[in-house]
Amino acid sequence: MAKAVNICEVGPRDGLQMAQGRMATDTKLRWIAQLAAAGLKEIEVGSFVSPRMIPQMADTGDVVRGALAIEGLTVCALACNLKGAIAAHEAGAHVLAIPISVSDTHSHANVNKGTEAQVEMVRSIVDWVRAQPRPMRIDAATATAFGCSMEGGVPLDRVARVAAALAAIGVDRIALADTVGYAHPALVRDTVRAVQDAIGDRLHKLHLHDTMGLGLANALAGLNEGIRDFDACLAGLGGCPFAPGASGNVVTEDLVFMLESMGFPTGIDLQQLVGVRTLLAQSLPGETLRGGVAMAGIPQTFQPQAA
Amino acid sequence: MAKAVNICEVGPRDGLQMAQGRMATDTKLRWIAQLAAAGLKEIEVGSFVSPRMIPQMADTGDVVRGALAIEGLTVCALACNLKGAIAAHEAGAHVLAIPISVSDTHSHANVNKGTEAQVEMVRSIVDWVRAQPRPMRIDAATATAFGCSMEGGVPLDRVARVAAALAAIGVDRIALADTVGYAHPALVRDTVRAVQDAIGDRLHKLHLHDTMGLGLANALAGLNEGIRDFDACLAGLGGCPFAPGASGNVVTEDLVFMLESMGFPTGIDLQQLVGVRTLLAQSLPGETLRGGVAMAGIPQTFQPQAA
Repeated sequence: MAKAVNICEVGPRDGLQMAQGRMATDTKLRWIAQLAAAGLKEIEVGSFVSPRMIPQMADTGDVVRGALAIEGLTVCALACNLKGAIAAHEAGAHVLAIPISVSDTHSHANVNKGTEAQVEMVRSIVDWVRAQPRPMRIDAATATAFGCSMEGGVPLDRVARVAAALAAIGVDRIALADTVGYAHPALVRDTVRAVQDAIGDRLHKLHLHDTMGLGLANALAGLNEGIRDFDACLAGLGGCPFAPGASGNVVTEDLVFMLESMGFPTGIDLQQLVGVRTLLAQSLPGETLRGGVAMAGIPQTFQPQAA
Repeated sequence: MAKAVNICEVGPRDGLQMAQGRMATDTKLRWIAQLAAAGLKEIEVGSFVSPRMIPQMADTGDVVRGALAIEGLTVCALACNLKGAIAAHEAGAHVLAIPISVSDTHSHANVNKGTEAQVEMVRSIVDWVRAQPRPMRIDAATATAFGCSMEGGVPLDRVARVAAALAAIGVDRIALADTVGYAHPALVRDTVRAVQDAIGDRLHKLHLHDTMGLGLANALAGLNEGIRDFDACLAGLGGCPFAPGASGNVVTEDLVFMLESMGFPTGIDLQQLVGVRTLLAQSLPGETLRGGVAMAGIPQTFQPQAA
């Protein structure tokens, strides 16, 4: 089985969305350029959502256009509806990420629509994008795939059914997202297997949070099932909207340390990646920067893999 | 394979050893009693070392004697030489834990003796203990088993050889300790297998630190190899003497959450365990209390196992 692992850095979107205060567009672009220079090949640079809802994302069009100038970088942007998808396409994003809650209750609370209606919304996006002369990859992320803070447990067959519906309408890739941080390794294993049974390798990525301290254990469980794509956030930005002060996304630096140590090349220079935290410390002084490797220093035993 | 997992809480020893300030003996005993009431069946309550070196441990004899009054609790104490072992036995400890550095350099730096001389020191302890009318279990922990901040990588066959030597002189159980936090899941798997090949189920426990954020991922790797005993610290106390500010031991609450969620009963009441942090917050105001579950709250999907 292939060993190379691709990490999509979601800090400029998921991390910043939870952060206090705004970050200037040129600072975002310096951050993204530094991440790319450290070896990140895919970055979710922002979201096309209402600037009234998430003012930090008001400049996403400019950020996408700026990021497109970075050679070799796959530029992703998130959108929650057709209007946002059109804006992402017009800005030139290579990849559109669309979140869909598997939990009906969470879906209604977030977008005032149930999961089935959301799948139909994705269909309208797929149809529109496929009719354009410029192609754009469409990734769907099944939010609350490992449980929901409102609904509780989410049945495996429901996750598999939603994934199958998204695959059937022509989404390119599907990710499973632990939106509220309830996942544990056995659940990751079981859910990945159920969804692989339903849609094969169309399931490509895990989006994990470190809410309960299990982020990397869950990543390991996914890795053991053949997952080779992970979202992560430099310094573990991201938090949890339901638990103020709780940890955010899986820490990119620690994930890279684990993967490279285990013989999975990521193409990322760990030392250089840790250095990018300086920009965050300066530009987001109110945020807690997390991460074991950055705090303790890279062990002298660390042996990076050839990319 | 058996599913029940035993967690040995090492906070009163490993956690307190790194903490600033002293904790009063009766506070230690309230802490230990609360841990036992939450379901911890084994607690390392202190160490018999020079009070000049570690003043926090000066009252270990009283703590052992007090803890012995708790019904059903296995009381462990650490010692680094025969004098300490005799003191542990005289105080009535059920279990003696002896750390031995697999790294010669680390061993010399810590106790001014190499690993081989330390194995001979353990032999003198085993011989003395076995000659006493009251039995005392002897656990050896191979420190720096996953790498050393001074020596770098430690060859697997060296770890296996030291474990075999300890088994041969009659130590009851052997643990592998990630003293400096360099372990990663593949190394845990390989080391556990190498040591199991050498000494079978005499290898019983992993002592893991969360220095690089990999504590629970490493525990998962050990669990997958059949390990059913883990050390942990409430609130992740412990730190790393080589990296000020770095994370300490694996967080007991998060480990319990992971294990119980995965179907491994620990006999511990998670809610009650989280409640013990209140005592730590009051009595160790200078310490950072870590832990995802405590910060974010126990997920409503959590289903504890029948013990």
